[in-house]
Amino acid sequence: MARPIITLTTDFGLSDHFVASMKGVILGILPDAHIVDISHQVSAFNISEAAFVISQAYPDFPSKTVHVVVIDPGVGTSRRPILVSAAGQFFIAPDNGVLSMVYSREKHAVRAITNAKYFRRPVSDTFHGRDIFAPCAARLAKGARAASFGKPFGEYVRLAIDEPARTGARSWSGMVLKADRFGNLITNFRVSEFPILLTRPFRFAAGGCEITEMARTFADFPQGELFVLVGSAGFIEISMNQGSAAERLGIGAGAAVDLTTY
Amino acid sequence: MARPIITLTTDFGLSDHFVASMKGVILGILPDAHIVDISHQVSAFNISEAAFVISQAYPDFPSKTVHVVVIDPGVGTSRRPILVSAAGQFFIAPDNGVLSMVYSREKHAVRAITNAKYFRRPVSDTFHGRDIFAPCAARLAKGARAASFGKPFGEYVRLAIDEPARTGARSWSGMVLKADRFGNLITNFRVSEFPILLTRPFRFAAGGCEITEMARTFADFPQGELFVLVGSAGFIEISMNQGSAAERLGIGAGAAVDLTTY
Amino acid sequence: MARPIITLTTDFGLSDHFVASMKGVILGILPDAHIVDISHQVSAFNISEAAFVISQAYPDFPSKTVHVVVIDPGVGTSRRPILVSAAGQFFIAPDNGVLSMVYSREKHAVRAITNAKYFRRPVSDTFHGRDIFAPCAARLAKGARAASFGKPFGEYVRLAIDEPARTGARSWSGMVLKADRFGNLITNFRVSEFPILLTRPFRFAAGGCEITEMARTFADFPQGELFVLVGSAGFIEISMNQGSAAERLGIGAGAAVDLTTY
Repeated sequence: MARPIITLTTDFGLSDHFVASMKGVILGILPDAHIVDISHQVSAFNISEAAFVISQAYPDFPSKTVHVVVIDPGVGTSRRPILVSAAGQFFIAPDNGVLSMVYSREKHAVRAITNAKYFRRPVSDTFHGRDIFAPCAARLAKGARAASFGKPFGEYVRLAIDEPARTGARSWSGMVLKADRFGNLITNFRVSEFPILLTRPFRFAAGGCEITEMARTFADFPQGELFVLVGSAGFIEISMNQGSAAERLGIGAGAAVDLTTY
Repeated sequence: MARPIITLTTDFGLSDHFVASMKGVILGILPDAHIVDISHQVSAFNISEAAFVISQAYPDFPSKTVHVVVIDPGVGTSRRPILVSAAGQFFIAPDNGVLSMVYSREKHAVRAITNAKYFRRPVSDTFHGRDIFAPCAARLAKGARAASFGKPFGEYVRLAIDEPARTGARSWSGMVLKADRFGNLITNFRVSEFPILLTRPFRFAAGGCEITEMARTFADFPQGELFVLVGSAGFIEISMNQGSAAERLGIGAGAAVDLTTY
Repeated sequence: MARPIITLTTDFGLSDHFVASMKGVILGILPDAHIVDISHQVSAFNISEAAFVISQAYPDFPSKTVHVVVIDPGVGTSRRPILVSAAGQFFIAPDNGVLSMVYSREKHAVRAITNAKYFRRPVSDTFHGRDIFAPCAARLAKGARAASFGKPFGEYVRLAIDEPARTGARSWSGMVLKADRFGNLITNFRVSEFPILLTRPFRFAAGGCEITEMARTFADFPQGELFVLVGSAGFIEISMNQGSAAERLGIGAGAAVDLTTY
């Protein structure tokens, strides 16, 4: 039988012990777990960035993988932990919208996790990653049925992270989902929803600058000039040839990006 | 039988090959090892920070886990490698006090590691992580008896890392154990040892500033104001609402923190 | 039977999902793989730095380990993926010279990977790490014969990364292979090739400064002074006592380092 896979996506960083504590708890319950880090460098409390990261990673994992996503500004409040079944895989996270981009892409079923027998005792006020999310993931990967964690519920939080808001006949208000390692700013404008960008003039406004050029490749424009292109995930990215658009514009995940088309 | 767990805590960072070399050596000896990174981002040579990190992580791991801690400013000198049994787990480290916070919390037995048959040959002058600590951890996790590594000894180095020094009737000299990802400065003042902080006026001096306010939650004070609070580990932390106390004060792990009570 | 080991060396960083996607693909093919990160912090597109990192790490891994090295500025062009057998281990990488320092040290056989049945379908233009290198590594580690990946070929790219170019009777032009965590600049001058450095006056020029002193240990020189020493890998390193030579000189991997001897 294949070793069960549990992935971790958090904003805990790699310098503190928090990620290791989650792994220790998982291995105490399920010594055979294969634990894979997706990212622990999500910007602190940034739900939309985490939603993007997990949405990019899960399709490359085998069925039955359990993905744990702990970006949890509401830890210690009454926000619910949830267990989501989608795409033949499982997702365990706080119910704050961090799985919204999974919901957009996949048929999904959401349960509130209420069965405290799966929790580590005592449950602290500040570290549900270790006390609730990690042990529930281990129990699930070990074979506990999804239904044993709690009841389905329909009022889960779903954010329009990948849907820019219409603000006028030809204008939309969107945002930066993530700055990648090279300083490219991945926006939440999908080229499939905005095919007009490939054929008509447009203007993106972000960080106090306007970008009106669409490149096919990085080398299309002179060094230091800002442009947009269609990234590998199908989202419009604001980029710069041989430079960091994020640094130039002074913005990152969560920043506003407005579009006007002509 | 459960796969043996070996954890690694170092100041090697993640950009060089050093951590991977340790893992390669471990897997060469014990292919079935489950290796868990605790942190490789401990500040260079910072024994007290590493002592804090390992003390926070080990309680979440199963019994028989072997923890390797390589913060080793004395590598190449005569400082001894040691094997410590405590809390049903094992710790392998240089004898420089890096396990002091384990000693504070747990009954423990310390052996000097002298059995060179467990070492990788030749032993380099500069990389005992690969040549001594990693192979010894793998041998131990593979089943070698603790007694086969060397004799118990009592003169091991024990630092008063978690005990601020009394400097007057109502004054103590302590330090920052760690700056966490958000810039909170975790000090070595335990609220259990200084309950007076919860009921009486006090003054912490750190980084040229004075902090006299105790918060229950981050939102108690206006943005940009410094305060202390009781962190999840029971230590007093110097914090700032929506900001980094570490940046504001310009200090990090190892910095002096002085307390006066009234 | 020992679990197969696959190592990963990339310039993808740890904040994006790219490394996790490669791991998901590997585990989908070979659930029992032991995946070890060597470094994902290689400077973007820096082939010589990656060549150095993998050359330092592979000797510490067991035979049959499969090393995947994805520093791939030519992704999407016609540069070939290759499978190299050397030192009883395997290396999978783009044919851009990134394995040159393995070639320098080991007898090796190079095959072009052409058997598309091992690829993930479809193969994207931008992410061969996930679509070609990861699945080929998993198939190889799972037992596919090297010969089934493609034919041997002799015109692979081999760069003189570890051989400074002679520019005069007593002058050579070399470079920085890597800046380590402490800011030491590891150059491509091997002391075994330049023993004269141990006995005669010399001048290194780098970052607009000249360095003429050889230290045995860091403490030989006053704080803030630049010197060179022989690093643990046998290369000359430009260092500073209690400071970062990389910051002081404002240079990093790939920077020019010129030597004149007297």
